Amino acid sequence: MSDPSRLSGVLSPVITPFRDDLAPDAEALIGHCRWLLSQDVGLAVFGTNSEGNSLTVAEKIELLDRLVAAGIDPRRLMPGTGCCALGDTVALTRHAVALGCGGVLMLPPFYYKGVSDDGLYRSYAEAIERTGDDGLRIYLYHIPPVAHVGLSVTLIERLLRDFPGTVVGIKDSSGDWANTAAMHERQWDDFRIFVGSETLLLANMRAGGAGCISATANVNAAAVQDLYLHWQQDDADDRQQALTAFRAILQAVPMIPALKAITAHYGREPRWRNVRPPLMTLDDGQRAALLAAIAARGFSMPGLVAGGS
Amino acid sequence: MSDPSRLSGVLSPVITPFRDDLAPDAEALIGHCRWLLSQDVGLAVFGTNSEGNSLTVAEKIELLDRLVAAGIDPRRLMPGTGCCALGDTVALTRHAVALGCGGVLMLPPFYYKGVSDDGLYRSYAEAIERTGDDGLRIYLYHIPPVAHVGLSVTLIERLLRDFPGTVVGIKDSSGDWANTAAMHERQWDDFRIFVGSETLLLANMRAGGAGCISATANVNAAAVQDLYLHWQQDDADDRQQALTAFRAILQAVPMIPALKAITAHYGREPRWRNVRPPLMTLDDGQRAALLAAIAARGFSMPGLVAGGS
Repeated sequence: MSDPSRLSGVLSPVITPFRDDLAPDAEALIGHCRWLLSQDVGLAVFGTNSEGNSLTVAEKIELLDRLVAAGIDPRRLMPGTGCCALGDTVALTRHAVALGCGGVLMLPPFYYKGVSDDGLYRSYAEAIERTGDDGLRIYLYHIPPVAHVGLSVTLIERLLRDFPGTVVGIKDSSGDWANTAAMHERQWDDFRIFVGSETLLLANMRAGGAGCISATANVNAAAVQDLYLHWQQDDADDRQQALTAFRAILQAVPMIPALKAITAHYGREPRWRNVRPPLMTLDDGQRAALLAAIAARGFSMPGLVAGGS
Repeated sequence: MSDPSRLSGVLSPVITPFRDDLAPDAEALIGHCRWLLSQDVGLAVFGTNSEGNSLTVAEKIELLDRLVAAGIDPRRLMPGTGCCALGDTVALTRHAVALGCGGVLMLPPFYYKGVSDDGLYRSYAEAIERTGDDGLRIYLYHIPPVAHVGLSVTLIERLLRDFPGTVVGIKDSSGDWANTAAMHERQWDDFRIFVGSETLLLANMRAGGAGCISATANVNAAAVQDLYLHWQQDDADDRQQALTAFRAILQAVPMIPALKAITAHYGREPRWRNVRPPLMTLDDGQRAALLAAIAARGFSMPGLVAGGS
């Protein structure tokens, strides 16, 4: 059985615009979300590439409120809500569910390392029970290269067994196809498996996956969506190769400032380049090389209006 | 020149007591802090072993207020204030300085990995400038085994040059004596170098260090303080060996629940065993073995009254 409220397709960990004083720019975020929705890309706000963990809980709640007040369909929102402190995770998750968000993307608490599966199970169980809302839909967030705290297949299965209807999917940002494949092999009922990079989108679709939640969808939205829609066509491998080649250009420099530099350029709004510490903006040479490399591929962001407040 | 307001000696990352509903127990924390001060051990509340990153900013502010209101001398407090989000770091640091805390122990933002020294410099610089208080005294917190984001000697030197009088010391929890020694060799003026484990206390004192900030000081307070006071005596190596052997017993099980099990036992308050997820309490077998092993060494916690609200 397939639950229509569960998410699938292409989502973007939406980059977060900051003013020069580093305050979030809600108007510019609304604008970028509208552009992503116009490309049929869903909104995984407050993900890793959103600098989500560089935002306070209060800032995230304020931004969510502003997005929904601006008319963004909350069912297209999958905010990141997993924090180090249980109280923060619960406050943010409750708020997201109350606003009607389609789901939440939940990191495990990521400060303490080498913790047991029992401890991680307890983290998710407490978060679910304290949120206390049947409308909660959790997409687990497995990103060991950054969090250094991962989610084993055994742990996921235990959560699925004990919280069916609440734990409904995962973003696998391990970059390890063997891990994604191991989950597919379990054939969990209607479990939505997203890969964390569009480089694995075709493989994931062929294995029965739900789609991808990928940084580059912030800028290369149409092309990623195109492969998602047409993965069964003859030219799917070519489309995948083109996506992978595009990503390689961005990965030659730090990804988050690269996404922001591209958005600033095509949206004609230099403030989009701003990042919060500990990140740094690209230097002029990096930015020029990046923009030249994608321009040489005929890249564009049609319809983007990246202004803000 | 030596600034008398800078901290030295033995400090403990004070374990945080939780009620059965996992709310912090301020009364029990006050009691444990009083006991530590009675052993002349300073109070590095909200450190790693305090489960500091499992507490919300609001919980930490409330606990700080309660400690100071209860008459704990704020000059003995070195709260951990480094968070992932700049706004959280600034709010907590400002509050600590306003209360008159002797210093703060500041982690770098620890979610994003592989960040540059420039980015980490910017994190500390923004935190210092936005805190905007001449009373701020920062002890940097270098703990790569847990944070996976470390502080290079080059970065520290740059911070010392640009923020003299504000960046005044470091807790080196690398566990790598070569790193500690490299800092000593720079002979930074009146820079307070604490090791993060009492196993390196004697080496650190012989090199001109300030002391240690160590988990086991939560329970083995008198013995750690004893080596600090008597490191120049003939039996210092024996004292160091005894401390190291005691720590080895605790390291046979997860450290934080071990410290809490010991405090619960000697304070006759089982609730002290509670930990927040993702940590787990010791199981009965682990606890029995731990308590038997330390009892066999004649361990005690004289004067401890571990009750709470």
